[in-house]
Amino acid sequence: MIFSEIIVVGREILQGRVLDTNSNWLAVQLRNLGIRVRRIFVVDDVKEEIEDVVMNVISRRPNLAIFTGGLGPTFDDITVSSIASALKLELVEDPLALKYIREMCEMRNLPLSNERRKMALIPRGAFALKNGIGMAPGVYIKYNDIHFFLLPGVPAEMKDIFENEVRKRLEVLEGREYYKEIYIEIQGIPESDLAPVIKKYKDRFEPIYIKSHPKGHESGLSRIILHLSVFTDKKSDLDLLENVKVELMNELKLKAKRIELVDSLK
Amino acid sequence: MIFSEIIVVGREILQGRVLDTNSNWLAVQLRNLGIRVRRIFVVDDVKEEIEDVVMNVISRRPNLAIFTGGLGPTFDDITVSSIASALKLELVEDPLALKYIREMCEMRNLPLSNERRKMALIPRGAFALKNGIGMAPGVYIKYNDIHFFLLPGVPAEMKDIFENEVRKRLEVLEGREYYKEIYIEIQGIPESDLAPVIKKYKDRFEPIYIKSHPKGHESGLSRIILHLSVFTDKKSDLDLLENVKVELMNELKLKAKRIELVDSLK
Repeated sequence: MIFSEIIVVGREILQGRVLDTNSNWLAVQLRNLGIRVRRIFVVDDVKEEIEDVVMNVISRRPNLAIFTGGLGPTFDDITVSSIASALKLELVEDPLALKYIREMCEMRNLPLSNERRKMALIPRGAFALKNGIGMAPGVYIKYNDIHFFLLPGVPAEMKDIFENEVRKRLEVLEGREYYKEIYIEIQGIPESDLAPVIKKYKDRFEPIYIKSHPKGHESGLSRIILHLSVFTDKKSDLDLLENVKVELMNELKLKAKRIELVDSLK
Repeated sequence: MIFSEIIVVGREILQGRVLDTNSNWLAVQLRNLGIRVRRIFVVDDVKEEIEDVVMNVISRRPNLAIFTGGLGPTFDDITVSSIASALKLELVEDPLALKYIREMCEMRNLPLSNERRKMALIPRGAFALKNGIGMAPGVYIKYNDIHFFLLPGVPAEMKDIFENEVRKRLEVLEGREYYKEIYIEIQGIPESDLAPVIKKYKDRFEPIYIKSHPKGHESGLSRIILHLSVFTDKKSDLDLLENVKVELMNELKLKAKRIELVDSLK
């Protein structure tokens, strides 16, 4: 198993001015890579808060810690320096990061100001990740067997660095698992009546995770989407998921007004 | 100052199947009440994970901890029992919670099954909060000077309990602050060139928080939204914000291709 934690840095999210969609996008990518996201944090742009979350994450010993936000040129872009401080790593100007920034300046016809140059300061021993869309390079740090990836908060830049620099480094990690999921929409059975049925299947087929999502009422009938999923290192569990689906649908067919496979929780 | 932490419980968010919008909604409500959100956590439906986050939150000594998710009737709705376990509080059947559930059953013509009755189990000393939309009552716990509010994850139910049960309890808290914000859209100045100007204002007007949000490029011009905000216990700081806005806009007018007030970060 590979466990990841995602840390979103930005006061704009804590104040509700921006809806964080970065952690959702990252969670989807990681799940599809067979990597489990165990916790997501949203943290203020404050040195002590970032240091605190870094120490908390390290104590939880994940394999990966993916940060997004706070990598730009302004005074409150302090993610890199705060993480370096928490890990007690010195900041040094990285020649590769500087090259990326210089190239972007030339492309955009902008001078290499001090503020831009600041973005080339990364922890000693860290590796700069090319940003194909904006100025701020990403940063990759290996620390105590934890892979730290620091990405910008601008979604297009985050995705660009993930796709071109992070993904290939995750694909070679050992311990990735298989993931498969199935959605079943059920009408006419209240969630509380479904609970004992789900519990029975859950106890019998332990690796299969089953969760009911109540979707309210439509024309007097309760609507629930059942989500069956498995995160497993055994390929045979993928077949088990199929079997559970068939058996569960046969049993619920007798009780539900309507039951059918659907694509998602929508 | 009143600090709050928000804790979202649900594997569906960690796996990226559901985009969490609850924490954003809560963050907006809290901000407008003059309460600062200091951290947001998304946590797995696993007893040890919920216990771990409760201990972490307590150690950070916030005034409020608002949980959402995992209050329903199914086996993986373990938020209430896991928090009780972390706080070493016994679960007891609460007569008021049971009354709310019984009323909802009667209204919907459903039997009071064991699974439904389970939702009336709340920590000893806690207070049940009426859910006007669904079955699961919310829970209010006072523990070590921290107000814990436990709300369902279904957005309509969460909002209902917040509006009718939580809001009035927050409005009477002492230490709430004033909040005001202004958005300025600027075209034609790169973020790195704006950085030293922002820093100057930031140093001169310390309570005012200024953040630039790069919005990409439009017809060759960089587009940035500047967000000025203040969270303060001094009403005079609201006027200070106005003054900073005027002075800053006058200075940037000379450098920008276009500058104007806007409503939001969009």
